Amino acid sequence: MSVTAPLGFIAAGVAAGLKSTGARDVALVQNLGPDFSGAAVFTSNRAKANPILWSQQVVGDGIVSAIVLNSGGANCYTGTFGFQTSHLTAEAVADGLGISAGDVLVCSTGLIGVGGQDFRDRVIAGVRDAIPALSADNGHEAALAIMTTDSKPKEAVVAGDGWSIGGMAKGAGMLAPGLATMLVVITTDAKLTSAQLDAALRSATRVTFDRLDSDGCMSTNDQVTLMASGATGIVPDLDDFAQKLGEICDSLAAQLQADAEGASHEISIEVVHAATEDDAVEVGRSVARNNLFKAAVFGNDPNWGRVLAAVGTTKAEFDPYAIDVSMNGVRVCRSGEPDAPSESVDLTPRQTHVLIDLKVGEATATIRTNDLTHDYVHENSAYSS
Amino acid sequence: MSVTAPLGFIAAGVAAGLKSTGARDVALVQNLGPDFSGAAVFTSNRAKANPILWSQQVVGDGIVSAIVLNSGGANCYTGTFGFQTSHLTAEAVADGLGISAGDVLVCSTGLIGVGGQDFRDRVIAGVRDAIPALSADNGHEAALAIMTTDSKPKEAVVAGDGWSIGGMAKGAGMLAPGLATMLVVITTDAKLTSAQLDAALRSATRVTFDRLDSDGCMSTNDQVTLMASGATGIVPDLDDFAQKLGEICDSLAAQLQADAEGASHEISIEVVHAATEDDAVEVGRSVARNNLFKAAVFGNDPNWGRVLAAVGTTKAEFDPYAIDVSMNGVRVCRSGEPDAPSESVDLTPRQTHVLIDLKVGEATATIRTNDLTHDYVHENSAYSS
Repeated sequence: MSVTAPLGFIAAGVAAGLKSTGARDVALVQNLGPDFSGAAVFTSNRAKANPILWSQQVVGDGIVSAIVLNSGGANCYTGTFGFQTSHLTAEAVADGLGISAGDVLVCSTGLIGVGGQDFRDRVIAGVRDAIPALSADNGHEAALAIMTTDSKPKEAVVAGDGWSIGGMAKGAGMLAPGLATMLVVITTDAKLTSAQLDAALRSATRVTFDRLDSDGCMSTNDQVTLMASGATGIVPDLDDFAQKLGEICDSLAAQLQADAEGASHEISIEVVHAATEDDAVEVGRSVARNNLFKAAVFGNDPNWGRVLAAVGTTKAEFDPYAIDVSMNGVRVCRSGEPDAPSESVDLTPRQTHVLIDLKVGEATATIRTNDLTHDYVHENSAYSS
Repeated sequence: MSVTAPLGFIAAGVAAGLKSTGARDVALVQNLGPDFSGAAVFTSNRAKANPILWSQQVVGDGIVSAIVLNSGGANCYTGTFGFQTSHLTAEAVADGLGISAGDVLVCSTGLIGVGGQDFRDRVIAGVRDAIPALSADNGHEAALAIMTTDSKPKEAVVAGDGWSIGGMAKGAGMLAPGLATMLVVITTDAKLTSAQLDAALRSATRVTFDRLDSDGCMSTNDQVTLMASGATGIVPDLDDFAQKLGEICDSLAAQLQADAEGASHEISIEVVHAATEDDAVEVGRSVARNNLFKAAVFGNDPNWGRVLAAVGTTKAEFDPYAIDVSMNGVRVCRSGEPDAPSESVDLTPRQTHVLIDLKVGEATATIRTNDLTHDYVHENSAYSS
């Protein structure tokens, strides 16, 4: 179901030969209206892929009729030819659906530098195959078609008061701030303006996808899109909508974290009593990006010294010698000195919780990351991606 | 030889039981004068180990008579007891040598959180054993005693015009900006004031140790110390001294890079035509810290897309679509588009050169790093360090 759970959306996922495996690699989602409100957030990487450059133009007027996504090639650093490919892809969707190409978002994911004539031909052929396959039953096929090194599709549905939100996501590595190597499509049949969608989406991504930092690497192709059909005719309570949207983003972010390349632990780094939320995020992210800490978690070693060494590199407000650190509920460092012995911490469960108490203020934030494993190195050295 | 190559220095390296292997773990270097000029640079990590806090006080007056270093425990996050241990260690040196404790630098390296009574007892016993072993012949033993996961000692000697400079270093992981997990001791028998030493040392470390970023992790215990005995009575040409000091720092930094934990490639990331040197450093460091790029090099995969994705996360001045990237002499990306095929790049040699041409200005910088390997993950997950 996922993106087709809300009324007014149809989808398809087809195989266009972009993936060498022959798996589905082109996804199409159409909004049938009556509203065509849309909003999107994009990677903050300055090296933006051609589909990002295209989509940023499209979403400017807040009207989105369809979104087409491909795996098997990022169409990034492929020059003006690559930008024309994104444009032609949107045109192919528009021609087939009788809509304007200026209302068609484009997303690509895969290897940077892939986006030549062969890529273009296959994507456009895939669009032509996808159009007749569009159906309210094919949301799952669309979720399958956007997978790259994902081991499973990511989907979620949340019910509101007479309306619903559905979403799909892909992403397995390069998960970092300002989004991740993620493509996310979220749909709703509630009645909302594009400005309302934009505000709700930015608010939700800020505390979900933006706080997932699997490997510190920021993608060139990230895009999180929210589309509203208004098909239920129901204008939702905005706070209620924001909460439900937050839930679906949180679910998809957790699915991305759980399927991160090669990971054997899902680590939640909770920073409490920070002076500001920005401080809490900076501290959490610094620990999330510390390879020595991440390798220690892989080895089930509660090496709190590596946590504090990472905290010490930040500009956040704190006294380095007043901090407490707990791991999976055991306080291993109290006021900057050893507390419970390392042997009392069990890091064997996949779910790992690190609590850092800065003892300064009242702000808090949680950053999600993964451990650094042999499988991560293997997946990212043995194959180009 | 190393630190005892210049006239006026004696050293020792003894085994005090801090290392479970029974290897040497306490080093002592004494300056016999007639001058006792000294300068040091310290980790910029806000979480500073107790020996750092001690040594920062000692070096304030520019007079350094001796330096004592231990492996087998970082004495970091060990509270006031740990600071007292650093103080008592300096006192033990001072008592034995008939000098002032306020002129004795202390360095420690090893696991954070280690620094209790047993640690204190062994370090001080080690100092007492080291004092009678001090000799101009024992520089190599001192270099052995500061090793942690290093596979070999790092030593270098450079001859000046009637004077010389000698140095030793340790460091194998946690090599990052604002120094690294490195302890470095450099000696000279030239005649220089502490202010001259300080200026020369900051200038040399800025473009050598500070540009070595093995794994993005910054240590709590880094210290690079320079001591001058003036034993030759020769006042060197300052530019000549600065150049020779740069040579020795460069040699030691290269030795640290070559022995980085688990590395299979030494990667030099050269950024050219940047608007400013700071821009060049920021770009180089961003690439040096990109796990996906580092894993690709381990796999001998010239994945230039990961280079550009990393460049795109910086604030440096450049047009993301004008950049050239070459790997080992082959231009794989020209003006942001694919150039020579990846197959034409040979990444099998340990020495790997990445050239990034920003095409903006005239500034340049080279950052040294290593690849991300299975052995790195193994060394940092299987053992606490």
